[in-house]
This record gives sequence, structure tokens and C-alpha cells, in this order.
Amino acid sequence: MSSLELTFLGTGTSHGIPVIGCDCPVCLSQDPRDTRTRSSILIKTADKHFVVDTSPEFRLQCLREGITRLDAALFTHPHTDHIMGFDDMRRFCEMEDRMMPVYATTATMEQLRNTFRYAFDTPQPWKNYLRLDPQILGGAFDLGETRIVPVELPHGKINSTGFVFHRGGRKLLAYFTDCALVTEEAMEAAHGADILVLDALRETPHPTHMNFEQAIAAAKVIAPGKTYFLHLCHDISHAVKQSQLPEGFHLAYDGLKIIAGY
Amino acid sequence: MSSLELTFLGTGTSHGIPVIGCDCPVCLSQDPRDTRTRSSILIKTADKHFVVDTSPEFRLQCLREGITRLDAALFTHPHTDHIMGFDDMRRFCEMEDRMMPVYATTATMEQLRNTFRYAFDTPQPWKNYLRLDPQILGGAFDLGETRIVPVELPHGKINSTGFVFHRGGRKLLAYFTDCALVTEEAMEAAHGADILVLDALRETPHPTHMNFEQAIAAAKVIAPGKTYFLHLCHDISHAVKQSQLPEGFHLAYDGLKIIAGY
Repeated sequence: MSSLELTFLGTGTSHGIPVIGCDCPVCLSQDPRDTRTRSSILIKTADKHFVVDTSPEFRLQCLREGITRLDAALFTHPHTDHIMGFDDMRRFCEMEDRMMPVYATTATMEQLRNTFRYAFDTPQPWKNYLRLDPQILGGAFDLGETRIVPVELPHGKINSTGFVFHRGGRKLLAYFTDCALVTEEAMEAAHGADILVLDALRETPHPTHMNFEQAIAAAKVIAPGKTYFLHLCHDISHAVKQSQLPEGFHLAYDGLKIIAGY
Repeated sequence: MSSLELTFLGTGTSHGIPVIGCDCPVCLSQDPRDTRTRSSILIKTADKHFVVDTSPEFRLQCLREGITRLDAALFTHPHTDHIMGFDDMRRFCEMEDRMMPVYATTATMEQLRNTFRYAFDTPQPWKNYLRLDPQILGGAFDLGETRIVPVELPHGKINSTGFVFHRGGRKLLAYFTDCALVTEEAMEAAHGADILVLDALRETPHPTHMNFEQAIAAAKVIAPGKTYFLHLCHDISHAVKQSQLPEGFHLAYDGLKIIAGY
């Protein structure tokens, strides 16, 4: 099976949408696509189910999508909006009486360890506790028959990790969230992927995220089959912005499912 | 005004209810009182609005309850189910361009600092970042005209902090979540409160939480006006268990509001 199913668990920024105490049209919108929990994705293949990031709403995202199996978690970077659901992986350890493989760069793993020290440094005697199997990223690696190529993306003072997913020799998906730009190396790694998922925060420039103009320009160089934007702030109305995008460009929304490959 | 309004933001255990992947009757229940996010409370008085703990669902609890103002946060202990919504207090810093006073014991504050080091140790230049004003608990203190008496409660390897809230010379509320027992000192501090909120995990004993039998026995000694139990696991059906409780004893549920005092 040279395919994967991508589910957008969350597509919002650090504040989530609605933003607490905000009465802007997007925060008050009745369109369910304007409700955005913090950004993360689920990838299901014939042999493995895994997530990229565990946002603060991870538990509720799992309930919404009926997720009952998780074989691994990959992390892009250790900002709170991408990691604070980490402990809720404990349930998947409990259900299958297993360790949870966690993949991250040295820098990201160090921050995960600082934040969830109890889980990294304490032997977990009970099977319903979070039991970790930390894996430091050092280049391409395999999860079942999926080959995963990590790339570094600049994100302010830190780097975030982008991931390019291959199966059966085919470049199915590039997932680049939280980046100020896409480097040439990352452009090349993602080039021609079936699906490209890209950070596009808002219309105006931001020091650590791409805006729509930058993201569209990057996507045109990468030339994927389809591009989906995420990490959208409350400046962005789904219906309004989607209607303005060129062909082949889409806004992701919470719960959206896509098949990449065949 | 010698009164306070207590809102139960969350009433569940570390797993939350429904538990991911669980098909027990409580996890499948259609009774909204059986849906439990992780335990925390909001207290509103005539002069201050504050929370005890910021659970992983804190942002969504704020949206559900329409919370647009927060003057302080008190912490009972640093377990993940009580703190992982911490960063979402940033929005209250932004809305009122203010520091957020955070009250905790030395031990709890040290863990909060380890977990959210970026917020404690980094000057936060942007007004939409979490800006903290840490306050180490050292005995009774005042938030506006509310006098708050902290007490230590044993909770396994650590202590959790209980809080007793007084206004106008009246003992309005004792909040004792996550405790294996109520010490004599805590019994005395809470004795005769209008409202007692108490940890009652389940029917069977647990090493770090009270079960119903222990919680009811403790409440009878404290002799409050009314007792509410929280931190309920998925063994407990709201409707079934409520019907079995003696007069004056209640199960809390997410969203329940109570006025203490007059």
C-alpha cells in the first residue's frame, strides 16, 4: 500500500480559535471549520499509526477522531502549543501495554525531557503511566514501511523539524509547520510531494511564521500535487480565505482527512 | 459581600472522562454530567476572579464558561492533570496588559518553573506572552477581601495544597482535591465551612486518593453545610452514585455553579 491517510487533528495557532475573550467574526463564527484547536496531525498507514506533535487538546482530538491506537509520536519543536498533550499518550501505553516511541531532535528532546521529567527520568511502574522510548533524530528513519526524512526549518530562536513521508518509493507528504521560511534543502526534500502541508499564519508578515504570500511562493517552488495551509490565526476566515486561494491551494481544518498516494 | 461563586471547571481524574478508547457505560454515557475534564475551579468574588489549577482543558473550560477576566491562579500541586493549561493564562495577561500572580508552595513552584521555564526565566517582551508574578505560599494571604488559608494534604510522594476561603469573617469554602487523607490540621482549618469540596476518586481504595468511604468519613468530621465530591474516575456514574449519597453530599460536575455565603 503506497498510501497514507492524513487527519488534521488541529490547525490553529498558539491561542487556538476561538480565542478566549475575543469577539471577532472568526472567533464568533458558526462555521465549524473556523474552530481550530492547536496544530497536530495523525498519519495512518497500513502498518503504523502515528502523530506529529501532541497539542494541548490532544486528548479531545483523540476522542473526536476515535483514535484507539498509536504506535509512535514525532515532534516538530517544543513550543507549548505543540507538546502540552504529551502526557495523554499514557492511555495508548496502557491499552497496548507498550512503550511509546518518541522521535525528536536532540534540542527538542532536551526540552521535552525538561518539561516532562517525571516521564523521562522516573521508572514507570504502573502500566497506565506514560512509558517512553525516546529516539533522537539523526537522518532518515523508518516507521514500518514509511521512510521519514526530517529537515530543519528556521522558527525564530529555534529550529522546527519538518518531515517528508515516503512509501513504496513515492514522496507522499511533506509536513512543514511553524517555520519562518522553507530552506533550499527542505524545498528539495519536499519537491514534487503528493501533498504539502505548510505554515501560513496570516496575511501580514510575522518574525517566526510564514504569511500567505510567503507560503504560496514556497509552495510554487516545491510544486506538490496539492498544498494545505495550517497554523491559521483568527485573522483568517475559512470560507473567505479559501475562496481567494489559487487552484491547488487549500486551507486545512480540524478533522479534515486526506489520502495521499493510492 | 460575604459570598463567592464557585464554578467547577473540571471534575475528572488524570485520564478525563470519556477515557480514550474506553467503552464502559460512563465513558459512553449521554448524561453531560458524566463528561469530566480535568479538575480545577473558578472562584468569583465581588473584587477578584481566580482559579485553582489550570488543567489541560483550561482554554476550553474558559470558553465554555465565558471567562474573560482572571486576577490570579492558585496551584494545589504540579501533576500534569492540574497544570498543563498553564500557558493559556497568557490570554488574560494580554487582555488586561498585566502580570499574572501565581500562588504555590516552594515545592510546587519549583516544578512549575521546571515545566514552564520559558515563562519563569525569560523576560517576556510581548504583551500576548505569559507574564508571571510568582508568589510563594507562606501561610494565610489575601486576594482582595478574601482571606485564603493553605493547608498541606498528603498525596503519595508529594503534598498537595488545600485552600480554605474566608470572607467577612465567614468560612465559605474548603477545596481539598488530590489527597490520600485529610490531616487533623486541615480538618480544623475546614471545620464548619459552608461548602466543602473533597477528592473522592472511586469506591475501591487508592494509594494517593480518598475513596468515597474515606471522603464521607472525613466530611462528617469537618461538618460543612454541604459537601461536593470531585476528581471522579470512570467507575462513577453521576446519576447512580448521586442517588446513593446521604443528604448533604453531592457529586460535582463540569459547569456546576454554587454560591457560598450570602
